[in-house]
Parts: sequence; C-alpha cells; structure tokens
Amino acid sequence: MKESALILVFACFFSITNALWPIPRHLQSGSTALTLANEFRIDTSSIHGVPQDLYDAVGRTMTVLKHDHMQRLVVGRGPGDDVDLGRAQRLKRLALEIISNTNHNRSMNEGDGNRVMVNPLVIHHDHLLENTENDIDSGGTPYGFPHCEIYEHDGQLHKCNHLQSIAANTALPAEERDESYTLTVPSDGSEARLRANTTLGLLRGLTTFSQMWYTWDNWTYTVEAPFEILDEPYYKWRGLLLDTARNFFPIGDIKRTISAMELTKMNIFHWHIVDSQSFPLNLPDFPELVAKGAYSSSKQYSTKDLDDVISFAAARGVDVMLEIDTPGHTAAIHHSHPEYIACFEKTPWTTYANEPPAGQLRLTEPTVVNFTQRLFSSTIKHTPGKYFSTGGDEINRRCYEEDPVVNKTLTESGKTFEQALATFTNRTHEVLVKAGKKPVVWQEMVLDHGDLGLHKDTVVLVWISSADAKAVVEKGFKIVHAPSDYFYLDCGHGAWVGAFPDGNSWCDPFKTWQKAYSFDPLANLTTTQSTLVLGGQQLLWAEQSDPFTLDSTLWPRAAASAELFWTGPTHPNGQKPNVKEALPRLHDLRGRMVQRGIQAVALQPEYCALRPHACDLV
Amino acid sequence: MKESALILVFACFFSITNALWPIPRHLQSGSTALTLANEFRIDTSSIHGVPQDLYDAVGRTMTVLKHDHMQRLVVGRGPGDDVDLGRAQRLKRLALEIISNTNHNRSMNEGDGNRVMVNPLVIHHDHLLENTENDIDSGGTPYGFPHCEIYEHDGQLHKCNHLQSIAANTALPAEERDESYTLTVPSDGSEARLRANTTLGLLRGLTTFSQMWYTWDNWTYTVEAPFEILDEPYYKWRGLLLDTARNFFPIGDIKRTISAMELTKMNIFHWHIVDSQSFPLNLPDFPELVAKGAYSSSKQYSTKDLDDVISFAAARGVDVMLEIDTPGHTAAIHHSHPEYIACFEKTPWTTYANEPPAGQLRLTEPTVVNFTQRLFSSTIKHTPGKYFSTGGDEINRRCYEEDPVVNKTLTESGKTFEQALATFTNRTHEVLVKAGKKPVVWQEMVLDHGDLGLHKDTVVLVWISSADAKAVVEKGFKIVHAPSDYFYLDCGHGAWVGAFPDGNSWCDPFKTWQKAYSFDPLANLTTTQSTLVLGGQQLLWAEQSDPFTLDSTLWPRAAASAELFWTGPTHPNGQKPNVKEALPRLHDLRGRMVQRGIQAVALQPEYCALRPHACDLV
Repeated sequence: MKESALILVFACFFSITNALWPIPRHLQSGSTALTLANEFRIDTSSIHGVPQDLYDAVGRTMTVLKHDHMQRLVVGRGPGDDVDLGRAQRLKRLALEIISNTNHNRSMNEGDGNRVMVNPLVIHHDHLLENTENDIDSGGTPYGFPHCEIYEHDGQLHKCNHLQSIAANTALPAEERDESYTLTVPSDGSEARLRANTTLGLLRGLTTFSQMWYTWDNWTYTVEAPFEILDEPYYKWRGLLLDTARNFFPIGDIKRTISAMELTKMNIFHWHIVDSQSFPLNLPDFPELVAKGAYSSSKQYSTKDLDDVISFAAARGVDVMLEIDTPGHTAAIHHSHPEYIACFEKTPWTTYANEPPAGQLRLTEPTVVNFTQRLFSSTIKHTPGKYFSTGGDEINRRCYEEDPVVNKTLTESGKTFEQALATFTNRTHEVLVKAGKKPVVWQEMVLDHGDLGLHKDTVVLVWISSADAKAVVEKGFKIVHAPSDYFYLDCGHGAWVGAFPDGNSWCDPFKTWQKAYSFDPLANLTTTQSTLVLGGQQLLWAEQSDPFTLDSTLWPRAAASAELFWTGPTHPNGQKPNVKEALPRLHDLRGRMVQRGIQAVALQPEYCALRPHACDLV
Repeated sequence: MKESALILVFACFFSITNALWPIPRHLQSGSTALTLANEFRIDTSSIHGVPQDLYDAVGRTMTVLKHDHMQRLVVGRGPGDDVDLGRAQRLKRLALEIISNTNHNRSMNEGDGNRVMVNPLVIHHDHLLENTENDIDSGGTPYGFPHCEIYEHDGQLHKCNHLQSIAANTALPAEERDESYTLTVPSDGSEARLRANTTLGLLRGLTTFSQMWYTWDNWTYTVEAPFEILDEPYYKWRGLLLDTARNFFPIGDIKRTISAMELTKMNIFHWHIVDSQSFPLNLPDFPELVAKGAYSSSKQYSTKDLDDVISFAAARGVDVMLEIDTPGHTAAIHHSHPEYIACFEKTPWTTYANEPPAGQLRLTEPTVVNFTQRLFSSTIKHTPGKYFSTGGDEINRRCYEEDPVVNKTLTESGKTFEQALATFTNRTHEVLVKAGKKPVVWQEMVLDHGDLGLHKDTVVLVWISSADAKAVVEKGFKIVHAPSDYFYLDCGHGAWVGAFPDGNSWCDPFKTWQKAYSFDPLANLTTTQSTLVLGGQQLLWAEQSDPFTLDSTLWPRAAASAELFWTGPTHPNGQKPNVKEALPRLHDLRGRMVQRGIQAVALQPEYCALRPHACDLV
C-alpha cells in the first residue's frame, strides 16, 4: 500500500532541505531539479465550499511564488553552472484537498488511507488532542469536517457543517486547532498534493510550499525534489508579544509582523496594547481613556484598526490575544480617571513601580472592579479568539500600602491585600469566563500572592525565569513559556532609564537566536506536567524599540522559538535541534523575509551565508 | 564695546537649550518665543564669490526649516497652551558673513571685532591651529580668506584667493580645517547673523541654526530666543567608520549616514570598503578584483559611486577616508590573484585569521609590494582628502609561517618577518606620502611589530583598548581614539560565528551611548601627549549589520562621540558632559533625525522622552 511505504521511508531518511523553517516534523527531500511551469496553478476544485480566506491564501501563495526573487544562498547565487533547468520537469499543479473520514464517496477516493497518513503525527505525543471517530460525528468540532451539505454514514443521512474558514479555525482554543497537513511534490512533474483536515492545515502547507522555491533567470525552481512531508505542530502555542504602549507601532507594522508570523507558522499574537506609559486603545465605551492616555491623536488604535488587525491575522492562522494588564501597569488610566489610580507618578518611581510612571488600579474599590469589568467586556467584544490576558505582573505593594483609599477600604473590610486581589481578580475574570474566554495571566498571579482561586482554565505566562515553570505547573495550570532568560528580545541594549551611565539592561545579555533555540520546554517537568505545556513565545517590550527597529529586533530571532515549538524535540533527521544545522536554514528564512518586505537582520557576513559552515567555530 | 560685552555674558550663563547637538562650546539662550517669518531668507549677499556648495547648504537649510515637522518634546507636543506664537516677533533674515581681517573696508564694518569674537575660541586649548596674522598673508592657507579679488594692506594692493568651497576646506588636513563660527539670533525679530572665517564654518553654523526650530500648526518657532553662540570643535577628528565588506551597503545608505554626520558635525567618514569577505571596490585599473571579489555584480562601488559619495560628503563638511587594509584582511584578493595570497581559506580559520576566511598578502614578494603600491595609487586618485588608511591590524603570524612562498623569500633574504613588514609598509606608504597623503594605520603597526619606521605624519587608530592610547602617543604618533571598549557599535549581539550556541559578542557588552559619552580622550596622558590626540570615532563593523539596521545601530548612539569630540570637556554651563543633562537633547536630536529620514532608534518610552528626567534613576 502506498501509505505504508511512505511511513517506512519516513523512518529512515536523514537528508535535510535548506529551505524550510520551521522544518517539518517528517520530511523527505531529494536532489532532482524541478521548475514551476508558467501555467502552474493551485487547484482547489476538489474542495467544496472553499472559504474566502483560503482562496486569499492561495492567491497570496501564487503572488509570493511570482515575486519572491529569492536566489539560492550558494556562491554564485544560482544553479546555472551545474543544473540545466531547461531540461528539468515542470510542475503544473498543486492540488489542495480536505481530508474527511466521513466523505468516502466524494472526489477524494483514497478512502481511509488519508487518515492513516495524518494520524501517525497525532499519536507521536500525548498532549495533542487526537482526532477520534467521535469527533467526526460530534458536529461541534470545527476541524476535520466534511466539505459537503449532506453525507451518508452508517446507512443514514447527516447534515454537514460548512467547511470552516481559516479564521474560524484560528479562533478555537489552541489545543483544538488542527494545523496538520501532508504535502507531496513529485520530481517528475506530476501533480503535487497538499492535504489537510482543515483549511488552517492547508494554510500551513501552502506556507511550506512557498518556501521551497528559488529564482534564477526566469526560472522558479527547486533542486531538492521530490518532497514528501507529514507535518503538524508539536506545541499548540507559538506566540509573539509586542508592546505598543511604551512606544507606539502603527498597524502597518503590526500587520507586517503578523505576516512574518504566518511565514514561520506562529499562531498567537500577544498584543500588550496598553500600559502605564500610554493607553492607545480607543474603545467606544471609554473614549476618555484614549483621549487622555494616548501619546497623541495619531497614536491610537480604533476598533476599526483592531478589527483590521484581527481579521488580517486570523486569515493567516494567527490568533490575536489582547492584554489589558491589571491591576498594575495602569497609570495611564489616571489621566481620565484619577480616582481609580493609586500612587500616580509618585516618586521616587523606583519605590512604587518597576518602571516609571508609578500608578496602579485601586483594586479594593467596587467602582474600580466595576470599571475593570466593563473595560474587559468592552474589549473582548472585539476579539473572536478564546484568550484574553489580564496581566497581573509586578504589582507593587508599597504603592497600595501608602494609598489612603486602598488602606481605608482594607481596614474597614478587614481584608488582607491578598484577599482583595483575589476578589478583584475573580470578579474581573468572571466577565471573561462568562463570555467563553480563557483568562491568561503572568506568573505572579499563581506564585506570588497565595491561592487567588483562579479559574482552572487560566493560562499562565512564565516570564521571570525559565526555572519558574515547574512551580506553576505544580499548581496544575497550563503554561506558556515566555522566560526572560531565553525569549526577551529587548535585552542587552543597556539601561534605558536616565541618569544611569553605567547601567546595563536588566535582562542582560542580548538573547541570541541560538539561546532561544537551545530552550528546553520540558526541562525539569514530569511526563504528566509536560502535558500542561501549551508552548511558548518570544517577546518584545518596547522601551528601546520603535517601528524602525521592529523587524530587525524580531527577525529572524523570533523564528527560533517558532521552530522550537513547531517541530519539537526531534527533527526529521532524527536528531535534536542544533544551531549548527539550523543556521543555513535561518539564513534562507531571513532572505525570504527580506523578499517579503520584512527587514530581518543579517546574522553573518554574506560570505558565511553563502558557504554553510565555513564560518562555524571549529 | 559690543564684542567685549558678549564675552562677558558668555562667561556667566548656565542655561542650556534642549535643541542643539553637539551643544556649542559657548552658548547663551533665552526664553522668548520667536517665529520664522513666511518671507524668512538666508542672505549671502555680503559674501562675494559664494561657492556653489555653500549655496547648496543654504538651500538644504531652507528645505529642512520647511520640512522638519519637529514638534517639541513636551507633553502635548506644542506650545499652543502657554505661548502665543501669533504675538511673537518674526525673524525675517539670517545674514551670512565671512570674516576677514584683511577686509576692513568691505561690507562688514565691525572691523577687528570680528576676529575678537572668534579668537577667544581658538585660544582655549593649545592643540588647535591658531589663526595668526601671518596666516592671513601666507596665501596658501585656504581658511579665513578674504572674499575679494584685490585688497589693500599696509598701503599695498594684494591679490585675493577666491573664497574656498566647503569641499575644499574639507579636503584639508583635519588640523587645518577651520570650522568655527558665531551665530546670534536676537529675540526682537531683527536680523540674525552667522559669521565664520570659512565656508565650512558657515556650514556648521547653518546646521546649528537648523536645530533651533520647532513646528506647531503653521508656525516654525523657538521659545528660547535670543541665542548667542560662539562655537568651534574642541577636537579636529570626529569620525565614523563603516565596514562595507562583511555586508554590503548601497551608496544611498552611505549618503544617508553622511547626512546624519553633517547634522552632528562629524567630519571624517572612515570607509572600510574592502576586506577578506568581499572586495566591492571597482577600480578601473583592477577590474578583476571586483569581478571576482564582490558578492555580486550589484554589490559594487564604481569610481562614479566613489566620486558621488565623496563629493556629497565634502559638500557636507565630511572628509571620506578610504581604507584598504593590508597585509591582512585581504583574502578576497585571492579570487583574482591567488598568487598574492597566503593561507587562503586555510582551516581551521581560527588558527590563521581572526575571522573567516583566512588569507593575507604575501608581503615578502616584490610583485605583491608592487601590486599594493599600484592598488593604493589607483585608489587615492579618487580621494581628494589627505588621509588614507592602509590598515595593518590583526596580522596572523602563523599564516605566514606556514606559507611556502613567504618562507622561501624570508629564508633566501635572511630577513625577519618584522623586517619584511617594515619594507612592505614603507614601500607602500611611500606612494601615499609622495601623493601628499597621510598614512593612517591601526595600532598594531606601532605597538606589535617593533619600530617599522613609519612616516612621522602617520595617524594611528587606537582600537583594541582605550588603555593603549598612551603607548601609542609615547611613540610620538598622533592618535584617533577608536576603542572597542567604548566606541564599537557592533558589540553585544552575541557571537556571529556559527556552531557556537553560547557564544557572546567578542566585545560584549553592547556599547551604550552613555558609555561612549563617558569616554575621556585625555585619560592618563600628559599635557604634551594630549596635543597628539586628533579626536575619535565610533565604528560599525558589519558582520551582523545590513542596510536595514544601519540607522538604528548608528543613531543616535554615534552622536555621543560627535558631541564628546566637538564640545570637549567643558560644556557651556561650565560643567563636564553628563548623561543626565544630555539625554533630553539626545531625544531631540533623534526626533530631528527621524524628520530627516534617518531611522534613529527610540532610546526610551515616549512617556520619558516627553518628560525630561521623569525616568531618571533616582
């Protein structure tokens, strides 16, 4: 049987292509030249009810195939000397298919074999949700669904759901998104095939396909055909945080960042949209917050901007998670609601906050709880995704201890600060849970204030140190790795606070891509605890960043975690990820980013980029 | 007398404007609003024989006055609330004047007072060349010259030189350039005056003038009139090195960098144009070098490009110094002349070079000496400036010890390596000296190989450590500070060599602007030795840089040394330079760079930039 043979082959190959990032979980490639025919097309005709965002993804793929003028990173930059592209086979068609187990009699006639091809991926680790037959009939799961109106099963007619859009798949909880796909590109010019359970899986496969091709003269070609790929992410959360409050980023920059996330198959954009320094979020229910809290009238995000970014991202398989950090990091609310904020701009700021200006929500006050509830409600109306971060980091006790309002209420109620914080947190998280959202918090909410009674579905971001992950999972929470000692992209540029001539970055040194790439998501965790690891994300806090430096600060560094959390601990060559193998591929990714308008920084002299391993330390 | 009064005033003021960088040596400003009138113009009518590049500088100044939409860095970004700009006086005219002692009867009728105004600057330190009466009559000095055809002096008629262009001034040896100027901007709307001995001095004053103004609504205004400025650089060499061999930079990027240098009054662009990784310099006499040594046909600098950059720079008071590093850092020559290069790409590279690929000129061979002489001759034909760097850093002994050709010649001649290096250096430097150039070398040529008999005018770049400066001046050479421990802009981004997962940058940590700003050019030097300090420069080696990161890597950091070496150890407030005072002005400079298309990075959250000292460490 064809599929069994394929599985056998996958078990014994070790060659690695230089082109793909993240490298697929299972990959076989050859050494045959293949060109794209002029009439090459991506064919969705076997899929019924193609959603618009899949059509758009196909269109984008065709565009980059045409416009990526990506020459191979070899001396001379092209194969003209040693490969006769004119004699190579030409690929005319990439056929897209949605695999459905309940759809035996439709255009795809391989039958159950399609499942066999995908399932081996699913069973390789135990924390991914398996596609079971039960899922197929449950009607509520939006992945793996038949692209039909009515289908026959067990002798009865069933009504099908429509094929879910990429955006709909992206709005699911991370654990429930199915991003798996298979991709075969024969070397003989016969049809290439991309198959997936979901449109989101097809998107991931299209991205892989788009990374296979180089340009020389008028050729679009590979020299590594055939390709056989079985792929799906090892971890379900592959995120990137951007802070738009310390310094503002126009939505063009955010959308470009999301495009780069799509290219690296990242799937959660953690938007730290407001903070003590500025409040650029323009909510119709709270016009005063932005009017007084934004840096200027041009440095704001309207709900139209939000919708624009979110829909742009969703179509690219990227879920946007907003963060409104509370009760700390809220000084900017003072400008419109001074009565809600304790210790505003109190000096010395070092006593009352981790960063200037000081200022925290008076969390003891019912009016503040109510305000925060309404603020969250108002915000999540605009976010189709399941996650919303309420922050909770770096709460300054002294700020509250010296605040007369908070003190009075605590004294009168006989409550401790921790009890007040628990009440504030639970009351404000209620709003999220009732709306079907999962609260996301920074690690202090679990480790620093006793048991706050957080909802069991709360996701915890581990940031202070990678060593803190274990303590959080021991409390039973799902975690996302965001450790400052590996993943903070802002470190290493000296102190940004003033009058500190010898100051270094608090999280020195600079976090290289190699450092991020060496992170072990399961370090010190038991097997059971490992199931609580959702994934990880790199982060850019913007004290020393701005739109000019955005791309080069993020890319290609953030691609390190993208591969780490997609491909997981075992690469298709059977080995662990290592920086020596990865570097040539990362040069390639950087080159492709540049082709697509992302100003990713050069990692080495071009001399080295053109000569894999010539500049390795030996 | 007016001038005497002015000097008195200069001795006792302490207020500092937030707008100027580098801050003038002597500066008084007020707190009166003044706007530019719609009909504002810069008037050169008192100057006879205005060279085209001064006209162009006036035109550029008018352009930036119109197009810098630079709002004040205050909360609200404008003075609308507290200053009635409509009622402010309007400045209609900035008059430019060339001061000439021998020109008593011409349009400027203040007589010798003009000299009095400038001379106090000159005598503040002893290593600047003084303008003496003798200079005036010497005929050969191109600064301070009368703008006339014939003038009367001591009862006789003398023929005047024509007024020298900015470019001609810039091509002088650094010590001989006169960049001094005075600038007065009254608050009552009466004529502002910019006076200098040279067109180069006028250019510096125009730059200062252009930094004084902000935009609000339709106003171009200052709130700090009147201004009284006496200014000239404390050090004559304020440089910036860019390496275009590890990674290539198109000339547009180089010209933008030079524009930023003009804005900060830097005056030497040290162009490390070729190296072992690539040879992008296209010399008509050596077409093979670039044909084989450039990364690609699009990554080359033609002599037309050179002329373009050099004339662009010269018109902006920036002298371009090319560097062709020899005998090391020359592996790229192998591609066209394998017979000239020892140990090409020999592995492990760590044994034979500081960076891959290994490869050094076979300095013992007469053909190589001849080649290098011709290479230098061919290059300096295109550089009007007085400086040319022959490098001389990081010579690898092992490379030569294992090279059969070099060994054979040494053995047959009975010479040591040091003797061969001395011969090579003197023979190749001869070409420069005969052509009126001053050789420039890295510190090893003085400290590491015994006495090589360098020409007394050789300028030495101290780079390995700031502590090495003393050893070099003790040998009697003029130095330029370029210490890696203060001024290397590439440090701190991790190792760029491959397969080195935990590698840090060799010159960790990142060199902040504060670090550069804290440098003491005269540390450990005697008064006599101090006269050998020409100045200093920050440096960008491009292993991990590219056009995308150029601006944000350079700016505003490199402005630190620009001010350090322009303003010197005593600021107009009588104090030493300090980062607390400097930061708000540096924010301002960064903002102005952004207005002019230079993507200088944000140093702090905008919250801090708008509130001087709110984010200082306290």
